[in-house]
Amino acid sequence: MKVKDLMDTNILKIYPDFTAKKTVELMYKRKRFSTAVLDDEDRLIGWIMSLDLAILDDKTILIKDIMHPLDKIITLHENDPARDAVVKIVKHKVISIPVLNNERNVIGMVRNCDITKTLAKLYDIPLDSLFKTLQKEIKGITWEELMDASTIITKQTTNEEITAEEYEKKLKNTTFGQAIWACGGLEKFFAGLIKIGEVAIARKIARRK
Amino acid sequence: MKVKDLMDTNILKIYPDFTAKKTVELMYKRKRFSTAVLDDEDRLIGWIMSLDLAILDDKTILIKDIMHPLDKIITLHENDPARDAVVKIVKHKVISIPVLNNERNVIGMVRNCDITKTLAKLYDIPLDSLFKTLQKEIKGITWEELMDASTIITKQTTNEEITAEEYEKKLKNTTFGQAIWACGGLEKFFAGLIKIGEVAIARKIARRK
Repeated sequence: MKVKDLMDTNILKIYPDFTAKKTVELMYKRKRFSTAVLDDEDRLIGWIMSLDLAILDDKTILIKDIMHPLDKIITLHENDPARDAVVKIVKHKVISIPVLNNERNVIGMVRNCDITKTLAKLYDIPLDSLFKTLQKEIKGITWEELMDASTIITKQTTNEEITAEEYEKKLKNTTFGQAIWACGGLEKFFAGLIKIGEVAIARKIARRK
Repeated sequence: MKVKDLMDTNILKIYPDFTAKKTVELMYKRKRFSTAVLDDEDRLIGWIMSLDLAILDDKTILIKDIMHPLDKIITLHENDPARDAVVKIVKHKVISIPVLNNERNVIGMVRNCDITKTLAKLYDIPLDSLFKTLQKEIKGITWEELMDASTIITKQTTNEEITAEEYEKKLKNTTFGQAIWACGGLEKFFAGLIKIGEVAIARKIARRK
């Protein structure tokens, strides 16, 4: 996934000879807390934030006199890996980052809320779907055998008595994110799955003999 | 993980009889784009954003006359699961959410950048660490056997010839996030791991006989 797959292309166009008043009105209307300032070919030349405008006493001032200069702006290139957007948002604690093409035109913005949405998707995958993959990959194992292996491992690791039916129900109502948090980390979650897989495989091999 | 483990407790205290001017100065100094308005016992009574202040012509106006009312504010309870913070940030596209205790005091704020940071941590786990778990859990398998099983599965699935040494080096330089994106999703990544585990287990069992 690249930055261009994450960005919002519906950008606000603010030019250096706009007054603060005109800029505030546009940002307020479009609910933008920060935005890029562009030259007449829509290349990035500055950055302006709602707080910079809120603090002003005189709103007839021009944007070019208060904008943050180019060398202070965090930017992304459209072909940067999406991961770079995450790293920059976290490191600089910014709300949004302008995305440039090779000509330095602003072609979009990566917003923190879009990043969160993308990252959160992974957490929302139901466990059910991971277990179906597990069953499909360990060829020759039935769903019932996998559920039985799961109850055995649950008993071994947590001492909890759970029926295969209860386990199956739990899988449907639990997401990957919840499971990681409940297990205390990805590695621990993963360790549990491997144990289940191992029991299931051992039984499959034993059955074949 | 709970909301209270994620929140920033360094909150800004804005009261309803503050002028817009005073509030802007405090928010500007502390770089807050939005903040809670509190009563005299620090309970949440309103919400104010930098854009609400930036749009004003008269900054002698009092906060109580422009703040967003209580029923329009997204909130979290300190004991809500951290996942609720993620869901609310994504759904409402907000920058931060006030966190309340049982008395409705504002005891912290969950900021979008803190959420991104927490979510991103999972993506940054090196594959190396997951494979070490794999080896530890499939008891009796050596690291070399696991690397061999990995090269076999790589050859089967991608037709790529890779040595065990190259595979090991790749593991060290690849994160969980990169692997998921490269495989085309968590389930597919997971399917590859199961195949590797299965080859390793089959070899372990064959060796025992």
